Amino acid sequence: MSETELDQTAREPETQLDEDDRLKPEFVRAVIERLEADDPEGARALVEPLHPADIADLFEIAPAEWRAPLAAALKDVLDADVFAEMNDYVREDLIDELEPSQVADLASELDTDDAVAIIEDMEPAEQREVLRAMEPDDRAAIEEALGYPEESAGRLMQRELIAVPEHWCVGDVIDYLRGNDDLTTDFWEIFVVDAAHHPVGTCQLSWILRTPRTIPVADVMKREQTLIPVDMDQEEVALRFQKYALISAAVTDQSGRLVGMITVDDIVHIIQEEAGEDILRLSGAGDGDINQPIRLTIRTRLTWLVVNLGTAILAASVVGLFQTEIGRFALLAVLMPIVSGMGGNAGTQTLAVAVRALATNQLTESNTLRMFGRELTIASANGLALGILIGTAVGAIYAYPLLGLTIALAMLINNLVAGLAGIVVPITLDRLRIDPAVSSAVFVTTATDVMGFFSFLGLATVFNLGG
Amino acid sequence: MSETELDQTAREPETQLDEDDRLKPEFVRAVIERLEADDPEGARALVEPLHPADIADLFEIAPAEWRAPLAAALKDVLDADVFAEMNDYVREDLIDELEPSQVADLASELDTDDAVAIIEDMEPAEQREVLRAMEPDDRAAIEEALGYPEESAGRLMQRELIAVPEHWCVGDVIDYLRGNDDLTTDFWEIFVVDAAHHPVGTCQLSWILRTPRTIPVADVMKREQTLIPVDMDQEEVALRFQKYALISAAVTDQSGRLVGMITVDDIVHIIQEEAGEDILRLSGAGDGDINQPIRLTIRTRLTWLVVNLGTAILAASVVGLFQTEIGRFALLAVLMPIVSGMGGNAGTQTLAVAVRALATNQLTESNTLRMFGRELTIASANGLALGILIGTAVGAIYAYPLLGLTIALAMLINNLVAGLAGIVVPITLDRLRIDPAVSSAVFVTTATDVMGFFSFLGLATVFNLGG
Repeated sequence: MSETELDQTAREPETQLDEDDRLKPEFVRAVIERLEADDPEGARALVEPLHPADIADLFEIAPAEWRAPLAAALKDVLDADVFAEMNDYVREDLIDELEPSQVADLASELDTDDAVAIIEDMEPAEQREVLRAMEPDDRAAIEEALGYPEESAGRLMQRELIAVPEHWCVGDVIDYLRGNDDLTTDFWEIFVVDAAHHPVGTCQLSWILRTPRTIPVADVMKREQTLIPVDMDQEEVALRFQKYALISAAVTDQSGRLVGMITVDDIVHIIQEEAGEDILRLSGAGDGDINQPIRLTIRTRLTWLVVNLGTAILAASVVGLFQTEIGRFALLAVLMPIVSGMGGNAGTQTLAVAVRALATNQLTESNTLRMFGRELTIASANGLALGILIGTAVGAIYAYPLLGLTIALAMLINNLVAGLAGIVVPITLDRLRIDPAVSSAVFVTTATDVMGFFSFLGLATVFNLGG
Repeated sequence: MSETELDQTAREPETQLDEDDRLKPEFVRAVIERLEADDPEGARALVEPLHPADIADLFEIAPAEWRAPLAAALKDVLDADVFAEMNDYVREDLIDELEPSQVADLASELDTDDAVAIIEDMEPAEQREVLRAMEPDDRAAIEEALGYPEESAGRLMQRELIAVPEHWCVGDVIDYLRGNDDLTTDFWEIFVVDAAHHPVGTCQLSWILRTPRTIPVADVMKREQTLIPVDMDQEEVALRFQKYALISAAVTDQSGRLVGMITVDDIVHIIQEEAGEDILRLSGAGDGDINQPIRLTIRTRLTWLVVNLGTAILAASVVGLFQTEIGRFALLAVLMPIVSGMGGNAGTQTLAVAVRALATNQLTESNTLRMFGRELTIASANGLALGILIGTAVGAIYAYPLLGLTIALAMLINNLVAGLAGIVVPITLDRLRIDPAVSSAVFVTTATDVMGFFSFLGLATVFNLGG
């Protein structure tokens, strides 16, 4: 009976969420008001029933100055699960306020991967102090993980997994799982290993449950496994999980021994981040995290803007070549931004498609040539359509057919430049192992600005417009 | 022994993949060469050992004209799993070539969600024919799924799931799973339901395996569940899976009855698509699929370009207001693209951050005001920095301090416009329930172009530059 009651309260927090699973503003305000009224107990009572993921959201949404008081009010509600769900920057701020022994307690509660995520960003001195305060076992696991490169499978994996010898039967596995209280409960597959601890097969739990006790696991398991090398980059790990629809995967070291396991719930965040960060990188917004310290954000964005200033000056200097013509016939200055701007738009389209196709492994050496042909066809078609449209309009409005022809030709040329640059630039950068999302946009817009101005003003000079 | 040999061959296909899990170009070429040499058997022998996901990739990478011959050569290798992994456009093309009875056979092999994915895009007449050729049970399940809106949980879910009554013990569950051969094997959690088939709890399989047979499932299950309403949009489903780190979730109808299950492997694709499509939408590249028929791609992109042409003409007409000033002092035309272009870059940065923050539910009503303040601070800082930089340079190079002051002020103004538009536009569209990724960019670049030209040329007129 009391369990049912518990159930009722446990479900209530859902009413604090709007239809998009976001905390309602009035709820956030109510919590802050409790803190303002110096009533930490009241704030705690409001927050306690929430899911850890929602408590983490509350910290992100709350104004920065209220985060420390909120943490103080929540004390024991603020457990390791909440920290694991929290935005990196917000977490770092909070962790900075804690004693090393408190951080050590938090980290000990977590799977290796989550503990590493909390500890990896600390200052080396504090990191050492936290590690010293941990149990030797936990410490060893985390120190080993920290030995792998950042953003590698070694940092992502958890060491807590179920591995059984290949000669066991299904019954042995079940007895082993029932008999050992200190095993992890967070697993979806078990790994079958040989005497040298090399994985030889993977077994979904549903297969174990559906098979009689006397059958050897070797007959149930799937031998065709997707293994993850411990030094693999997390983006590759994410693509592999996605491609083969994995729920969990064994991680192996250089000698092929099973050293850890990665589960899909840790990968989902990475897939989302990696897919979403292309847009931020293309626009030069860094990692685009709204919780990033503002000085860092300003520096990141300014760097990108200064690079773009260079290319803008380059484009302007092309216009400078035709200063005399513009002085004679100022209408050229009115129309030239249309040509460069439209080229920029078309180039960005091609670029966005190419960057995504490269990131999702859809654009490979085998179909690069086809992609070229495709983009040039699109560029020709759209360049012609836009050229005819604007050329006719301009020719008619200013009753000057040669001006119409000039802008039409310039539009076609610049669309071809845009299509070509939009595909050549990202593919070249990718071949050079440079992330095309980071640096492509500068090259492409430089090309479309420079060629937009040059083709239009150049043709105008050749045709001696306004003369 | 023979099983071990099988194992060896089964692993070999990995050598056909490069380090990024993409099919090697020489392998793709080898397969096409076999087809060219009219040796379908040879092609089949090469392809057969591949994972279904890689066979699907092969179809996407292969030139369009070789896809039908490839399908003919592969016949029985080309099973439902391969179709489920395939790009929508490529699959549609192949499905068009098949008889309705063949499609029905394929669909019957699949879970409901994958079968629906294959059938939902067919012409209504063909769809009816395929459904007629299916077993009544399969047909009913698919017809029901097709009754839900596109991109809703009802289309995504599979009906094959394990639901047990709450009074059962762990042992009852295991016996039920062992005793019924026709149950699905693809499940990671079981759902506990009451007499009215309402889900009352969820049980990870690992909990079942670790618990003695005599314990009631009601004591093992987690009562706090995340349920998915059957009409929920797939993007919301994906965010919910991600937020609560779900592996599978029960889908319920309006009356709260359990009607299906969604598993994370179907969600991973959606997370990737939804996160990646923002960049394509912002750039007006439609869904950006490189396998989309080229006519459709041209139409999608041209529509966007024509909209942008309108805004470019608007910006040009602002320049037109100052034609006399430009005729008198052509240097203005040289410098004005710097101001508008830099504003565009800064606006795109803010816009990208805002669009991502909205898409990931990080930007909510509670922190909108803070985000405004943040972006305006960044815009002021960067506008000042860029203004001083370009103002000093221009003033010095042309030995004309007032010209330097003009471009510096215009740069600051346009950065503020960019920061403001970059945040106001997407938030407003989001409040109006319009996808900010689709339409924000036009408004923001219009604002920065128009205000860039207007502030620079307007100030130049006020200061009577070149006069």
